[in-house]
Amino acid sequence: MKYKILLAYDGTQYGGWQVQNNSTAIQALLENALATILRAPIAVTGAGRTDAGVHALGQVAHFTHEESLDLFRTQGSLNGLLPPDIRVLELQTAPEDFHARYSAKSKIYHYHLHLDRVMSPFLRLYRHHVNFPIDLKELRTAAKLFIGIHDFSAFANQASAGAAAKNPIRTITRLDAIPQEGGLRLEFEGDSFLYKMVRNITGTLLDACRGKIDMEQIPEIFASKDRRLAGGVAPPQGLFLVKVNYVE
Amino acid sequence: MKYKILLAYDGTQYGGWQVQNNSTAIQALLENALATILRAPIAVTGAGRTDAGVHALGQVAHFTHEESLDLFRTQGSLNGLLPPDIRVLELQTAPEDFHARYSAKSKIYHYHLHLDRVMSPFLRLYRHHVNFPIDLKELRTAAKLFIGIHDFSAFANQASAGAAAKNPIRTITRLDAIPQEGGLRLEFEGDSFLYKMVRNITGTLLDACRGKIDMEQIPEIFASKDRRLAGGVAPPQGLFLVKVNYVE
Repeated sequence: MKYKILLAYDGTQYGGWQVQNNSTAIQALLENALATILRAPIAVTGAGRTDAGVHALGQVAHFTHEESLDLFRTQGSLNGLLPPDIRVLELQTAPEDFHARYSAKSKIYHYHLHLDRVMSPFLRLYRHHVNFPIDLKELRTAAKLFIGIHDFSAFANQASAGAAAKNPIRTITRLDAIPQEGGLRLEFEGDSFLYKMVRNITGTLLDACRGKIDMEQIPEIFASKDRRLAGGVAPPQGLFLVKVNYVE
Repeated sequence: MKYKILLAYDGTQYGGWQVQNNSTAIQALLENALATILRAPIAVTGAGRTDAGVHALGQVAHFTHEESLDLFRTQGSLNGLLPPDIRVLELQTAPEDFHARYSAKSKIYHYHLHLDRVMSPFLRLYRHHVNFPIDLKELRTAAKLFIGIHDFSAFANQASAGAAAKNPIRTITRLDAIPQEGGLRLEFEGDSFLYKMVRNITGTLLDACRGKIDMEQIPEIFASKDRRLAGGVAPPQGLFLVKVNYVE
């Protein structure tokens, strides 16, 4: 049987969703907790590989297991074994052909910017503190340049040496800046995202806002496919995987 | 000259506002930062002594210093020296007779309860997770019993052996339960509060909600002046010192 897990986690303490040979990977902690409860080795597949320090409000993962589980009890046991900064929000059965990653229709990420002079002590691990003024209208104009089907090579890091994505074409269906208390958030929705793509786009937008990059350059940066021409990478703590959408 | 500081802090890592012989007291960190900047020993007096693990959105403190300070720069320097979980929100001059504690007219504390089955990973350090149902109407009825002028001895811990408050009479002007996402918060306003009084009242209200204490007993508990008859102490992480009010 196939099972679908909806997860939230505070990524501050972790090396990311998936880390090679590192027990502080969130995926590994989930696999260990499942193995303890189900008394069998369990492999878990996540919808997206969030990086070190990146958070999730709605990560999705799947696993298969021979037996039928008491979903309510298993969820409770998982939350009993997992550290309090990782929570299983839902545990459900899923169709046999469900795949957390490949069945995903789109993903929503939010990147939170704190624009007040003083950072809140309660948001310091969940916002990027920006100490220059942001013109919302300008930010939105620049953001529009990223919407649509593009080759995002210039906005993707290589996960490891020589490991560029085979297909760097991605579709961003929505990228908007929404004001919120103390700052604003960038809301990204797209089919899927390349490695560090959301943080690289955010860093490029911020560089455009402070005049380090000219907005007219952005189409050229796309065309260059050269990561070095885009802006800096925005830090991980502002980023949240908010939701993974699946076809019904 | 006298200076007034408005502070916010995440109390998770600290032994409280004031701790004897303990460098992790928030007051001591503030005094050390001021001493470094002003090149003189500085004593700081706070409006309220928050306990270990208790948070502040609006703690107030005062200090005196011979020289006139550049307030904007000094605030920036303080935030540069203090750890990121303690922030100086405002630094102002104050009248010579201003006293952070004795000039206070009233204080507002909020106690946050999380009532969902699963705790949010992002609120785990800022909410008390309650795993029994709360009847809001019943809670409000019980809360009303605490409003007004009372001898709060039964709801005060002794700060140290034999150190009961000389005057245990306090006035609570407001105590209400306000629903919020994932749970509710108790809003306390009063002239001042005895040691652990907010957490003991919260613990007693929770014990009343789950039937461990009969609501009719509460007036008897007041009359007994016996701490042992009141409910358990609610944990520190749900409590915030929100605001200290002063006469204009």
